[in-house]
Amino acid sequence: MSPRKLFVKDLGEFQLIDLLASALGAEHDPTASGDLLISIGDDAAAWRGSNSNTVLTTDTMVEGVHFSLDWAGWEALGWKAMATNQSDVAAMGCMPMYAVVSLGLRGDLPIEGLEQMYRGMAAACAANGGAVVGGDVVRSPTFFVTVAMTGSAGDEGPLLTRDAAKPGDIIAVTGSLGSSAGGLQTLRDGLALDSEIASYLHNTHNRPSPRVAEGYALRALGVSAAIDISDGLVDDLGKFCAASGVGADLRADQVPVDDRLKRALPDDWISLALSGGEDYELAFAAPAETVTEAKKKLDATVTPIGQVREGSGVRVLNADGDEISVGRGGWDHFK
Amino acid sequence: MSPRKLFVKDLGEFQLIDLLASALGAEHDPTASGDLLISIGDDAAAWRGSNSNTVLTTDTMVEGVHFSLDWAGWEALGWKAMATNQSDVAAMGCMPMYAVVSLGLRGDLPIEGLEQMYRGMAAACAANGGAVVGGDVVRSPTFFVTVAMTGSAGDEGPLLTRDAAKPGDIIAVTGSLGSSAGGLQTLRDGLALDSEIASYLHNTHNRPSPRVAEGYALRALGVSAAIDISDGLVDDLGKFCAASGVGADLRADQVPVDDRLKRALPDDWISLALSGGEDYELAFAAPAETVTEAKKKLDATVTPIGQVREGSGVRVLNADGDEISVGRGGWDHFK
Repeated sequence: MSPRKLFVKDLGEFQLIDLLASALGAEHDPTASGDLLISIGDDAAAWRGSNSNTVLTTDTMVEGVHFSLDWAGWEALGWKAMATNQSDVAAMGCMPMYAVVSLGLRGDLPIEGLEQMYRGMAAACAANGGAVVGGDVVRSPTFFVTVAMTGSAGDEGPLLTRDAAKPGDIIAVTGSLGSSAGGLQTLRDGLALDSEIASYLHNTHNRPSPRVAEGYALRALGVSAAIDISDGLVDDLGKFCAASGVGADLRADQVPVDDRLKRALPDDWISLALSGGEDYELAFAAPAETVTEAKKKLDATVTPIGQVREGSGVRVLNADGDEISVGRGGWDHFK
Repeated sequence: MSPRKLFVKDLGEFQLIDLLASALGAEHDPTASGDLLISIGDDAAAWRGSNSNTVLTTDTMVEGVHFSLDWAGWEALGWKAMATNQSDVAAMGCMPMYAVVSLGLRGDLPIEGLEQMYRGMAAACAANGGAVVGGDVVRSPTFFVTVAMTGSAGDEGPLLTRDAAKPGDIIAVTGSLGSSAGGLQTLRDGLALDSEIASYLHNTHNRPSPRVAEGYALRALGVSAAIDISDGLVDDLGKFCAASGVGADLRADQVPVDDRLKRALPDDWISLALSGGEDYELAFAAPAETVTEAKKKLDATVTPIGQVREGSGVRVLNADGDEISVGRGGWDHFK
């Protein structure tokens, strides 16, 4: 039992999730049936099917907290509502399958906007897999969009999970980091930019490409430890390490950052890459030879950025191997 | 394309759902894979598994719209968040399996309350099946709880759907109707009641028992047309008829109503039973002999209340067979 007079604002997201999971009680054991593989605490839950494992995830976007219609168009909003879930499915090494959409709607929202949002959802499904098959629509003083999505592993092989990183593994990421957060910053601040750079940054923020094919390919290569980077690299690596019971050394100078982000935000790009959030790239840990193979076989670039070690926590190092402090915290939903 | 300047408040829930489903576009066809059995428009979506069909549903509760902590305790809130989804799964003739919970939380909500809410969820799972296996927790100015839940058909046999009622079928309901809405009314109005009656009505409102075993048994008896009564009998029968392309005659005098509701609210019980909402009973349509068999075999009472006919719409008749008008509309989430 938690002490009295503790409120949501007093806890971090993960402390709160731990407390709520505990409140379900020891007798609430969904693994008792023998079919459940992964419960609370990973990118998605997973259970054993008769010839393919299935995952289930959910992700919520709240107006004024996760998005503003001032800098995200309606279509982008629909795209992102799907993409955040597709990214969680990708982080398990699975293919998106079926989605249900719950909408909390203010009465003064325009129907035309909502239709555009659904077109954005359909576009994200066409690009990344999955389909909207149902949902719930309710009245709410605050506009929110919740999507729950299943994914299929295609076979019974092990999934990508957060708890499988081992000391000595190389940590690598797909794509480049920080451009989504850079896009948000330039949109919010109304920063004047070269149009090609603006288009790249805004598009990376508004229409992220979840790494579905890459997650599936990593699983086929025998990778078993992965997480998607939605809350910022350092923050998500912290969760990855905590789940695996290991520590990590991260080389800040090796983190892949697009030149256009560096040019647009020369003072901020490194902190954005380390802790900006909403990248929807995959971080994974595997033996060096597997990472080398992944570099060859994946469509996206794969960049080694550090190594798993015994212990706990993420040390961020510079090119000389000295520990540096990260200026901005990761994205915590409450603090 | 809808006309410009149409807003959420201008449309009913089902008009809006139709528009949004259309906005997904013809090329967004989740049945193309051949695995999807039921998409947008039923109590849940459903797809074919290799040896068992699976359903997926979602249901959202928003503070100030669907509940108030003034008359629903925290534990009841958790129970109901599960029960509404379990009822949708039951209305497909399936067993609840895995649930993910998305919480939109104000910073000033007490942790102890949220823990009680999760204990309520665990209790509803212990009673009615299913387990919480994950979720998402976000900050929100409005408190809301969204649950998405899968269910298993146990085999490949046809599911209970809304579109299978046939002219000549008898319409029957499980349990009794109106007591949940009566419970809400007495709680909200602070009506002084005999303690046994108060306990019955409040409990029916706060801890509804979804008809999981009954839905499964109906399917085993060969019933194929059913819906759960969450928005009020007349309103939900209207959806049932529209989905099946039929009409229905409903005998108001045959609708089962508990004596305790009649005693507590002698002027309101019939309108509560016809359109109060939140009953979480099942209505189904089947040939007379199947309904007779269901009366014998189901744990819950089964009461014939009308008949399916050609045409459209629900006619509410009195004991003399004359059409009567229903004083209150069903529960529409927007109008």
